[in-house]
Amino acid sequence: MAKDKLIGVDLGGTTIKFAILTSEGEIQQKWSIRTNILDEGSHIVPDIIDSINHHLDLFQLSRERVIGIGMGTPGTIDFENGTVRSAYNLNWSGEQAVRAQLEAGTGFPVTLDNDANCAALGEQWRGAGDNEPNVDFITLGTGVGGGLVLDGKLVHGAAGSAGEIGHVIVEPDGYQCTCGNKGCLEQYASATGVVHLAQDLAEAYVGSARLKEMIDNGDEVTSKIVFDLAKEGDFLANEVVDKVGHYLGLACANLANTLNPTKIIIGGGVSAAGSFLLDRIDANFQKFAFKPTRDVTELRLAELGNDAGAYGAASIALQSNRTIA
Amino acid sequence: MAKDKLIGVDLGGTTIKFAILTSEGEIQQKWSIRTNILDEGSHIVPDIIDSINHHLDLFQLSRERVIGIGMGTPGTIDFENGTVRSAYNLNWSGEQAVRAQLEAGTGFPVTLDNDANCAALGEQWRGAGDNEPNVDFITLGTGVGGGLVLDGKLVHGAAGSAGEIGHVIVEPDGYQCTCGNKGCLEQYASATGVVHLAQDLAEAYVGSARLKEMIDNGDEVTSKIVFDLAKEGDFLANEVVDKVGHYLGLACANLANTLNPTKIIIGGGVSAAGSFLLDRIDANFQKFAFKPTRDVTELRLAELGNDAGAYGAASIALQSNRTIA
Repeated sequence: MAKDKLIGVDLGGTTIKFAILTSEGEIQQKWSIRTNILDEGSHIVPDIIDSINHHLDLFQLSRERVIGIGMGTPGTIDFENGTVRSAYNLNWSGEQAVRAQLEAGTGFPVTLDNDANCAALGEQWRGAGDNEPNVDFITLGTGVGGGLVLDGKLVHGAAGSAGEIGHVIVEPDGYQCTCGNKGCLEQYASATGVVHLAQDLAEAYVGSARLKEMIDNGDEVTSKIVFDLAKEGDFLANEVVDKVGHYLGLACANLANTLNPTKIIIGGGVSAAGSFLLDRIDANFQKFAFKPTRDVTELRLAELGNDAGAYGAASIALQSNRTIA
Repeated sequence: MAKDKLIGVDLGGTTIKFAILTSEGEIQQKWSIRTNILDEGSHIVPDIIDSINHHLDLFQLSRERVIGIGMGTPGTIDFENGTVRSAYNLNWSGEQAVRAQLEAGTGFPVTLDNDANCAALGEQWRGAGDNEPNVDFITLGTGVGGGLVLDGKLVHGAAGSAGEIGHVIVEPDGYQCTCGNKGCLEQYASATGVVHLAQDLAEAYVGSARLKEMIDNGDEVTSKIVFDLAKEGDFLANEVVDKVGHYLGLACANLANTLNPTKIIIGGGVSAAGSFLLDRIDANFQKFAFKPTRDVTELRLAELGNDAGAYGAASIALQSNRTIA
């Protein structure tokens, strides 16, 4: 029987998402389970194994048709040994032999990559990247992550930390970052970064603006509130969005000058602000990007939402040459 | 007879350098000829053909032992068609069928890449890169160029302009660049950029310093003079070198955060300032680089000098699968 199915798994701190896809990248089934991080996360891998085995039976899918499993995971991956460490939001302590356990429990070859990389590859393959070979991805959420696809493959670099766009310096000696450095993109373009900028600009602002009132009043301000107020025309909120657009446009331009992609895709919760944010990023990108780069690189919003990781995980399973005895 | 020789050619605006190497990358013979840019550069390719054929006879090297020719060239390369355009310093007008002519004239498969990329690959393979797979290269000369080696291969991006590190923005709204943008690295770290910084800092400087005297006196100041004065302890010249180190350290850190190389190699004429400059770059690199990156990336000076291009050209010939009928 021809192998023509892929299993993509997106392991997150609260939910584990699963999808069964054709080798062309069409999702045929998807489901999710809650991530049980109790007992040092020791239930996570067994739960994934059970869920896959159960659903293959449920869907009456012949196991012989499965090419393999790809999984996106938090933490740092040892690609050679298939182990994961430093996945703090999974409560794992020490190195976890994730690949070996998953292969033993399912009988399928397993390929791992980190979650931001999987989302990048998913968007490149089946989302806003239109399956073009050179696509970069930036995700704006609680933090800022990234993934780089070059000639159709993920870039890992020497120690797997390539694509750490959130820690590119956009403001030397700027805001203190949790990584220990100052002025990282993450401090200006993540959900908390946007709020930090709003607080700083509000303090210096003397006019009247709803955003300033809220901050002075001690109301809870989120990045969504900042963008909503900006869309309603609030002057101060627009100043904040301009700043966010400046930093993201600068980072995108320097990324494009370095890697010459055809598309840079912006995803994650903050990107829900949509074209209102993207247009500001693009205006700054046009200003900062080298002309030969500017001519070929388009900025786009992510299209796959929560499914990006599962698509990308399936894609790494497809690209992998891994077999098991 | 086993094929075990490579021919590397480094085509420049004033000199064409040639080398015959073993497939392990040992140079066995090297020579050079003057670049004749007369008559719209129409003599260049025939001169290269004649010189290769002549030297193979001279060295009595069997043509059957030659794997192929690699050549680094200025201009923009169409990798599919093997043509070159916009090589202004060669006086070429329009698109030149360089690969087809070289292959017809020598009988060997020919692979082209741009000159900065060849220098990068040469340093990665046989120079300061110690043949590690993930190495980035920045060359500081009249301009600032770059080349990126990832998993042992050059990165070209979608339109061949990947690695344009000279046009990464290091000072938003900074010095006007010839590319049309403002604040490109090239304007702060090229030979002319260093002098520009010296002039600006001299103007604002009120103390006494030999560098300031020279500039106020209208003496010709070069980047070499700036570095020499700095080494002698001239206060102003050291301020200039600090600035150059800041911008290069920032650019190297952002490059490392993006690509996670094990080495970033600094070459070109300005790098003749040696460890005096490298140490300043590194101090800023340590400040700006993301920790997981900092832990694996070492900054080094280029080691191959003028031979880097020929080594790299030979390397692309070795990597190429190109054959000719």
